[in-house]
Amino acid sequence: MAERLVVVGGDAGGMAAASQARRRRPDLEIVALERGRWTSYSACGIPYLVAGDVARLDDLVTRDPQTFRDRHNIDVRTGHEATAVDLDARRVEVRDHNHGRTFTLGFDHLHLATGATPVRPDLPGIDGPRIHGVQTLEDAAHLLEEAERCDAENVVVVGAGYIGLEMAEAFVRRGCPTVTVVEQGAEVMATLDPDMGAMVGEAMRQFGIVVRTGTSVTGFEPGSVHTEDGRLPADLVVLGLGVAPASGLAAGAGLETGVKEAVVVDPRQRTSTEGVWAAGDCCQSFHLVSRRPVHLPLGTVANKQGRVAGVNLGGGYATFPGVVGTAVTKVCSTEVARTGLDEREATAAGLGYETARIESSTRAGYFPGAGRITVKMVAERRTGRLLGAQIVGAEGAAKRIDVVATAVTAGLTVDQVVDLDLSYAPPFSPVWDPVLVAAREVAKVVR
Amino acid sequence: MAERLVVVGGDAGGMAAASQARRRRPDLEIVALERGRWTSYSACGIPYLVAGDVARLDDLVTRDPQTFRDRHNIDVRTGHEATAVDLDARRVEVRDHNHGRTFTLGFDHLHLATGATPVRPDLPGIDGPRIHGVQTLEDAAHLLEEAERCDAENVVVVGAGYIGLEMAEAFVRRGCPTVTVVEQGAEVMATLDPDMGAMVGEAMRQFGIVVRTGTSVTGFEPGSVHTEDGRLPADLVVLGLGVAPASGLAAGAGLETGVKEAVVVDPRQRTSTEGVWAAGDCCQSFHLVSRRPVHLPLGTVANKQGRVAGVNLGGGYATFPGVVGTAVTKVCSTEVARTGLDEREATAAGLGYETARIESSTRAGYFPGAGRITVKMVAERRTGRLLGAQIVGAEGAAKRIDVVATAVTAGLTVDQVVDLDLSYAPPFSPVWDPVLVAAREVAKVVR
Repeated sequence: MAERLVVVGGDAGGMAAASQARRRRPDLEIVALERGRWTSYSACGIPYLVAGDVARLDDLVTRDPQTFRDRHNIDVRTGHEATAVDLDARRVEVRDHNHGRTFTLGFDHLHLATGATPVRPDLPGIDGPRIHGVQTLEDAAHLLEEAERCDAENVVVVGAGYIGLEMAEAFVRRGCPTVTVVEQGAEVMATLDPDMGAMVGEAMRQFGIVVRTGTSVTGFEPGSVHTEDGRLPADLVVLGLGVAPASGLAAGAGLETGVKEAVVVDPRQRTSTEGVWAAGDCCQSFHLVSRRPVHLPLGTVANKQGRVAGVNLGGGYATFPGVVGTAVTKVCSTEVARTGLDEREATAAGLGYETARIESSTRAGYFPGAGRITVKMVAERRTGRLLGAQIVGAEGAAKRIDVVATAVTAGLTVDQVVDLDLSYAPPFSPVWDPVLVAAREVAKVVR
Repeated sequence: MAERLVVVGGDAGGMAAASQARRRRPDLEIVALERGRWTSYSACGIPYLVAGDVARLDDLVTRDPQTFRDRHNIDVRTGHEATAVDLDARRVEVRDHNHGRTFTLGFDHLHLATGATPVRPDLPGIDGPRIHGVQTLEDAAHLLEEAERCDAENVVVVGAGYIGLEMAEAFVRRGCPTVTVVEQGAEVMATLDPDMGAMVGEAMRQFGIVVRTGTSVTGFEPGSVHTEDGRLPADLVVLGLGVAPASGLAAGAGLETGVKEAVVVDPRQRTSTEGVWAAGDCCQSFHLVSRRPVHLPLGTVANKQGRVAGVNLGGGYATFPGVVGTAVTKVCSTEVARTGLDEREATAAGLGYETARIESSTRAGYFPGAGRITVKMVAERRTGRLLGAQIVGAEGAAKRIDVVATAVTAGLTVDQVVDLDLSYAPPFSPVWDPVLVAAREVAKVVR
């Protein structure tokens, strides 16, 4: 009988692994269990679906179950939820929601890609029907349905992280008259330093989003959100408080978990038990700058980890060395990006650091469409090692973070960054790219 | 008496040095000689002036002579040309074109930033009045005047490098009915591999530029350009055959010259004679991948070299380690970029290599405005070291070259590039950035 690989989770972390394993092991029986209806979709695209940039929910699906079955010989079973794993007996308990039955499925190899679930703080009324997390296409479908049904006048977004910002913008662009973001912290975007977060908050306000920072939510009831500062009308509530690894299945089976109870994996995506692998939002990653494990639930990471798991599952050799914490988003025409360590993270990692923040232009100053860009750079004291950067600016600003991510990964000093031979032509950059200007300034402080 | 620094050349390589020296040595007497009327301008902006994107020639001037005099205490003398240098007597012979007189000027330190001049092949009629190089603001002023006077119906651009492409586009956008680019090589853009150059040629044709590759110009006469394949009507001719270092002054003085007779400098921008410095288009650079001297006349290089020379001149310590050959341009909405070694250069450097060329999307495929991007990557055989890349694609494509430039400089392998934590969100990139996809493909071939 063929060896069987059971994959739990039909999104990036699961299906990238299944595809890679199939490519290398045509003999393997591969069963992929997905609780929902969809496979391999872009959850990151949900805000753009809500905004109307993307016409149909199906546009977010990269590869549907039937394609996996037909072209990759992967037995994808949607509406199937793995409810327990017995590592000794090497079998999974499966709930088939389509037929309301439960069965067990044996495996030779198991790959867990159970993803993450939106954080739902323990507050009165949190389980109300109009309080939406945004993590899966099911979530998106419910949210869209609700938004169309109630013709929301007032939308409240709780939490001003990436998803919070993107959803707030989406509802404004959808035509919702009042969109309010409530954030406990002093500034929006806690993954930026407060001075940079403040710039993003300002951009949000200019776009017409009501931003209430330093405000805690105390509870929910139909039609309103309660905060310390009073009641906010709310036809619809979106939770943007981050996600937690959906590691219950793994933990229940006895697999080792770590940061935020994410599944612990080695660089080949192996869990603590032989023959059991994991990838994506349910897993830990290793932060290459802080040298510590982190939970970084991002589509890129899930795809890369899934691929690495699949190569190894298929008998090849691949590793996922880790992350530097790169992320990007935009609020209307203001682009926001970050990578490496911010001030708080550098302190937490025990590193002494210096910073510089510069203003420059996205293109040559005289070129039409040149917009403002602010770059803040963090470098290690004494050594001058580049630790990270944050960017807020006009169109063309954000993708510059990739230069910093590359330089951080390579361990360059800010002096070495100053010398980088970056591209220049008036439509693309000032003669000194803003990243180089920031490096030049922080290099002075380090010296 | 104060020590005197004489700077020859008032553009980036000269004035960046003068400014840095001034900052560190308030006591220094600094005289800057500029043959033309302008200082510190963006020659790279000339095509956009011709196209009409930039309204006035003065918009291209970063800092004018009076500002240098008033704010930096630099004695800028425009219309002054250095005609000879006597290194033993430490003095410069100067022709003052404003007053038609010649005088000598002693120096303690000399900084040469004499730039480059457009290549003018020795062909019949090359010195005709309607045959324009595009290197200085004087060139731009003449060209604009001529273009307005003759209301050009037919413009012929000789040479399909960066300036040739940009000027051809500029004349089309200016409204010129027939713009023809004549190129001796098989494809446009000789700094790309032919397969990538062909894509640029196609973009030019789609934009309405007549592209005649594999065609040599044999001579010029008023109203026409002669080629091997016959006569082309031409009210106006633009030379885009590259530039040669304007190193006559340095060579005449006995300073060492190298590649293309560019002035030889060490990493601190010192020439072969103590107390004599040089920077910018008249100088050599060092190529960090081929490990050979090169002549790379670019504004970024001139600015950086000028800054380094000025820091050292002022008693500080700075070096310019070298270049990786990064360049970027666009033809209408098609962006073009390259860095590191292309196939021809890798061969010339004696390196075995593999390549991969991939097609991807500038944004998530489902996101509005997603456009095509082609990335070709070159990696060293066996070691997998990234050697270079070329990009042709829609808006947002080109600046990705900076990631490659950074990775090449850091000596990363293509496997390490695959693992880079580049930013992803649907408006900015597919979940696998095209650079990572290219790295993944070339990594397969290397293995």
